[in-house]
Amino acid sequence: MGLSPRRSPDVHPSKALLSLPFLLTFLLVGSRGESNAMDNVATERMAEESHRQDSANLLIFIMLLTLTILTIWLFKHRRFRFLHETGLAMIYGLLVGVILRFGVHVPQSMSDVILSCAVNASPATLLVNVSGRFYEYTLKGEVSRGKGHQVQDDEMLRKVTFDPEVFFNILLPPIIFHAGYSLKRRHFFRNIGSILAYAFMGTVISCFVIGLIMYGFVSFMKVVGQLGGDFFFTDCLFFGAIVSATDPVTVLAIFNELKVDVDLYALLFGESVLNDAVAIVLSSSIVAYQPAGDNSHSFEAMALLKSFGIFLGVFSGSFALGVATGVMTAFVTKFTKLRDFPLLETALFFLMSWSTFLLAEACGFTGVVAVLFCGITQAHYTFNNLSPESQDRSKQLFELLNFLAENFIFSYMGLTLFSFQSHVFNPLFIIGAFIAVFLGRAANIYPLSFLLNLGRKNKIGSNFQHVMMFAGLRGAMTFALSIRDTATYARQMMFSTTLLIVFFTVWVCGGGTMPMLSFMSIPVGVDSDQDTSQSSAVLDGSQRRNTKHESAWPFRIWYNFDRNYLKPLLTHSGPPLTATLPACCGPLARCLTSPQAYENEGQLHDDDSDFILNDASVSSMYADVTVSTDASGSRTINRKRSSTASTGVGPFDEALDHELALAEHEVAIRGTRLVLPMDDPIEPPTTVTLPPPPSPPRSDPRRHRL
Amino acid sequence: MGLSPRRSPDVHPSKALLSLPFLLTFLLVGSRGESNAMDNVATERMAEESHRQDSANLLIFIMLLTLTILTIWLFKHRRFRFLHETGLAMIYGLLVGVILRFGVHVPQSMSDVILSCAVNASPATLLVNVSGRFYEYTLKGEVSRGKGHQVQDDEMLRKVTFDPEVFFNILLPPIIFHAGYSLKRRHFFRNIGSILAYAFMGTVISCFVIGLIMYGFVSFMKVVGQLGGDFFFTDCLFFGAIVSATDPVTVLAIFNELKVDVDLYALLFGESVLNDAVAIVLSSSIVAYQPAGDNSHSFEAMALLKSFGIFLGVFSGSFALGVATGVMTAFVTKFTKLRDFPLLETALFFLMSWSTFLLAEACGFTGVVAVLFCGITQAHYTFNNLSPESQDRSKQLFELLNFLAENFIFSYMGLTLFSFQSHVFNPLFIIGAFIAVFLGRAANIYPLSFLLNLGRKNKIGSNFQHVMMFAGLRGAMTFALSIRDTATYARQMMFSTTLLIVFFTVWVCGGGTMPMLSFMSIPVGVDSDQDTSQSSAVLDGSQRRNTKHESAWPFRIWYNFDRNYLKPLLTHSGPPLTATLPACCGPLARCLTSPQAYENEGQLHDDDSDFILNDASVSSMYADVTVSTDASGSRTINRKRSSTASTGVGPFDEALDHELALAEHEVAIRGTRLVLPMDDPIEPPTTVTLPPPPSPPRSDPRRHRL
Repeated sequence: MGLSPRRSPDVHPSKALLSLPFLLTFLLVGSRGESNAMDNVATERMAEESHRQDSANLLIFIMLLTLTILTIWLFKHRRFRFLHETGLAMIYGLLVGVILRFGVHVPQSMSDVILSCAVNASPATLLVNVSGRFYEYTLKGEVSRGKGHQVQDDEMLRKVTFDPEVFFNILLPPIIFHAGYSLKRRHFFRNIGSILAYAFMGTVISCFVIGLIMYGFVSFMKVVGQLGGDFFFTDCLFFGAIVSATDPVTVLAIFNELKVDVDLYALLFGESVLNDAVAIVLSSSIVAYQPAGDNSHSFEAMALLKSFGIFLGVFSGSFALGVATGVMTAFVTKFTKLRDFPLLETALFFLMSWSTFLLAEACGFTGVVAVLFCGITQAHYTFNNLSPESQDRSKQLFELLNFLAENFIFSYMGLTLFSFQSHVFNPLFIIGAFIAVFLGRAANIYPLSFLLNLGRKNKIGSNFQHVMMFAGLRGAMTFALSIRDTATYARQMMFSTTLLIVFFTVWVCGGGTMPMLSFMSIPVGVDSDQDTSQSSAVLDGSQRRNTKHESAWPFRIWYNFDRNYLKPLLTHSGPPLTATLPACCGPLARCLTSPQAYENEGQLHDDDSDFILNDASVSSMYADVTVSTDASGSRTINRKRSSTASTGVGPFDEALDHELALAEHEVAIRGTRLVLPMDDPIEPPTTVTLPPPPSPPRSDPRRHRL
Repeated sequence: MGLSPRRSPDVHPSKALLSLPFLLTFLLVGSRGESNAMDNVATERMAEESHRQDSANLLIFIMLLTLTILTIWLFKHRRFRFLHETGLAMIYGLLVGVILRFGVHVPQSMSDVILSCAVNASPATLLVNVSGRFYEYTLKGEVSRGKGHQVQDDEMLRKVTFDPEVFFNILLPPIIFHAGYSLKRRHFFRNIGSILAYAFMGTVISCFVIGLIMYGFVSFMKVVGQLGGDFFFTDCLFFGAIVSATDPVTVLAIFNELKVDVDLYALLFGESVLNDAVAIVLSSSIVAYQPAGDNSHSFEAMALLKSFGIFLGVFSGSFALGVATGVMTAFVTKFTKLRDFPLLETALFFLMSWSTFLLAEACGFTGVVAVLFCGITQAHYTFNNLSPESQDRSKQLFELLNFLAENFIFSYMGLTLFSFQSHVFNPLFIIGAFIAVFLGRAANIYPLSFLLNLGRKNKIGSNFQHVMMFAGLRGAMTFALSIRDTATYARQMMFSTTLLIVFFTVWVCGGGTMPMLSFMSIPVGVDSDQDTSQSSAVLDGSQRRNTKHESAWPFRIWYNFDRNYLKPLLTHSGPPLTATLPACCGPLARCLTSPQAYENEGQLHDDDSDFILNDASVSSMYADVTVSTDASGSRTINRKRSSTASTGVGPFDEALDHELALAEHEVAIRGTRLVLPMDDPIEPPTTVTLPPPPSPPRSDPRRHRL
């Protein structure tokens, strides 16, 4: 992501401040006529000074991140859990913001010249004729009215302000991609119906509930005379959309560490990931809907329908685009022997994933949504085609990018509270917003859970509902959406309020998640893998039926289609397409099926998601391995059950168990064709030479070797 | 590197083009008075369009890179070696440049408004009052005189032009850091004297020779009337400085693949890495020297001395800063238990390395030089403190960043030939430049080699000299330096000529390296590791003496100091400081020595450089391991020689051999204190439980396990 030429407004204003002495000489020089060389030198020095200042500004953030990392380590080391790392990053950001605001006194700069000549337009590029020499200027944006003369106040603070586009184009994509890439797809797809309901319907409900409540508040404020500017109904809806996006980051981290119930985890995580996508599309639809009415900003049914159309179009377009690039990457990695060169492979993987984002943005779709589904597709198909080394590399790369981007955003959030120039803190509005957010979340969770429970075999308990209600933190996406446009009074008030909501939810709700879980008596320490292995260890009839019933019929259809056609087409896994496609497609099928597919029919586990593990689960896996290093125990388990995964050695056991749960399930739904005879002689694990072993967790192979 | 808020000029001009319809409505709206909402919408749409266009532009580059990667793979797969990947990237860039130049016809945009009002300065920020509303503009730069009206020509081409600062701040640092980080320090330090001579004296000689020759040519051109603008002596020197930087990228890749003689490799690589640093500092000193004289740009002894002072100051400052941050990182990683969390550790490592660059730039030093020495320090000390996983991660991360940045630069180079607007191709100047570059290189290599051979035991043969002469490719750094400033006629001519020189050297010299090597009958296929193991396997007296004599006395002093004080201080390796420091420093020494240092006195090999291997050498290592998997052979070798590395198992054998060569050497120069008794019983390798094993190459542990 490092090559983007994004522009940031903090770069150039800095010139103004530090280049003052140079500017003065420059002015003097300029006035005495044509001293070209000196001018050039002065310009060069100015540029140099500006560059130096920019480096210093960026350094502030790097130092902030370094400090955050060290403190995170300290917290992890001492097992403090009351504050998540993102909360920590915010606190550091706050501190630096306070220092910049009140500690650093910067002299007033007078280097900005206000031109008052009669220009009747504000083009993007401006050429200014300064005594015969042309200077090119680029439009930075409009300055709030009446602030013309105060605009150069607090240069230092303005310098540390990034272009909001930086968040959308550089910082968010890796976070969202990582979320999609590391999604535990098995649990996700098991709850796909509920997740979609919460994410789509829930977010829309929440958006409208918050919008309506805020409209009420705003109307009240107008009556009382507390409102300092325009605030339309569409603004209220926009506010509803941006604060409806719950954040996957913090919840994910806490729940992951505590090993909460897998279904609760899947519901919350799935909701918050899709949530972000929905909120982006929703808010941009509302903005697009806005101009339809003129100043009145009134509510029109037709415009609403149009908005809805835009929403659907953008969402499905982004979805299709993300999946398409994912599929293309899978094709490329399958049909070239790129896997011999892990570096090239990783680079290609990275570039293709990034190009998804750019392509979507260039087409007018939402890059973040596209990148999310691209991540899911990449993890489901492409990941299996990669060489083991590239699998590691790509995982680690995206993990690192995600970590850095996340902490950067949160520390920047803290900084913004003090560095942002046009905060509008309106107590009434803030109170209203907190109430609205609370009610909006409640209107999302409780009614939907009730409706979903009517259809679900595996009910969502009331304690789960309370936790979901409580754990709806607002984070990076809400911030990014609200900082995107802070031009009007309404948007400024929204931004300030949103910032407070984010702070509150991250610190209070985030910190309170642990007590909340124990208060709600929700079991903690349930390993997602352990959970499955338990269920497969005691594979009695009821459990199996349960697994079957959990999966809704659309999921089963999809599962079969994926297993029989898509996976063989896009990866090296079996069954070969020659077996699954009708005979008429024989030549095509032969051409598209890779030689490995014939050999390892069942080799590729269907829930690869569980191989994309985080550190916590990896270490727990290794713990298991060390217990059963003799491998005889594991081998007997192998023999006892099935040999679809006879290639597994020690560390694959857990994966095996997963596979079993689904293999059993598979037997029930489409016959025993793919399950090899039970008494197949198993090769000793030490001689395994499988060409592409299905990505065992290898984050620390030394431990394994010892 | 992804978080940088660098500004690029290609972002905003694009607005001008595509926002034309919006701009028109905007103008109409603006003229009829106050329709705030519509204005906002129009601005928003303009921003959106511009953003879309930017994404499309960036997408061009990503696609270019993807294409390059696929072709690189094809070439590697088919074992084509006549064209290096960088050359390939350049060709693709050229093609896209041609398409953009001649294929895409863009209508003339009239949206740039030229203000002719009486402004007598060009401040960094401009506030324009457009009928009561203030717009903020930032200075982009001066537009070439007389081109005021043509400046908006070929918008499309201008859009794909990056700010040169992007190269310096985003693309170069990872390349240079990687060069330092992956430096084979043993061979490097063995030839440190010669490398420094070539890099410092050689570059300065080359710079002046080229400068003088060019001055002759330029004077001739002035007489003939072929010169279209000013070209001063300092310009000639500047040109000499920028084209004296040889490129490590291409040579490194070719030589690495062919496994050329290690000393030749070390000389060329070391020279070209330090070269870059010298060229940067040299060229900026020349620029700083320029203003001292007024228009005359004459040659003054005093100013030259001043330049030399600046050169030394900047170089040593950057060096110190790079080393200092490296040492700080080593301290942090040593004294915190950050290694328990590889992600945090990698992130910290990455951020600290990046902050070196920013810190140096903020202090007015040269970031690239600082980053180079930071890389070397990190590899020498910090790398040993990292957890094995972080070692892998950091290596892979920097490798990937390096790869992407490199290919991006080279494909951009190709693009620039057609997309750059103000090319000045002057046949006479170009011919002169080619001759000057050739002679400059010759004046660097041959006289210096002659002088060095007087002092060297291991002479630099004339065939080596010819290869060094031939393999002086110009690459990324030359390009970056020349594109940095293209405002004047002289600089434009330099840029165009430099581009041609880069193309020529990369394609012709790069492609001709193989034939050249065989023509010069230089042995190919010599493995750097094999070379050492050979020498230690036949450890007869003469060879040992050879090793000893190869190392100059400053190197020996440094080696002892490093071994006894710096390594124990900065890493976990022994000997403990309590043993090496005088008794009076006892408490401090105890405090600074890590517990591991007492256990594994000789555990850390002194030439860790060989552990930072590229894939090629890793696979060759593994080949050796598979041969001697019984491990008994290796153990007997262990017992026979020394036990400073008794902790070594199979794959460490080669490392052991390296260690031996130096251990023997050590015995000779500082007594046997640290060498344990020869008949020390060696533990069986399978029970080794060393806490931080000395970073064996583990890029593909599976192969090892099988």
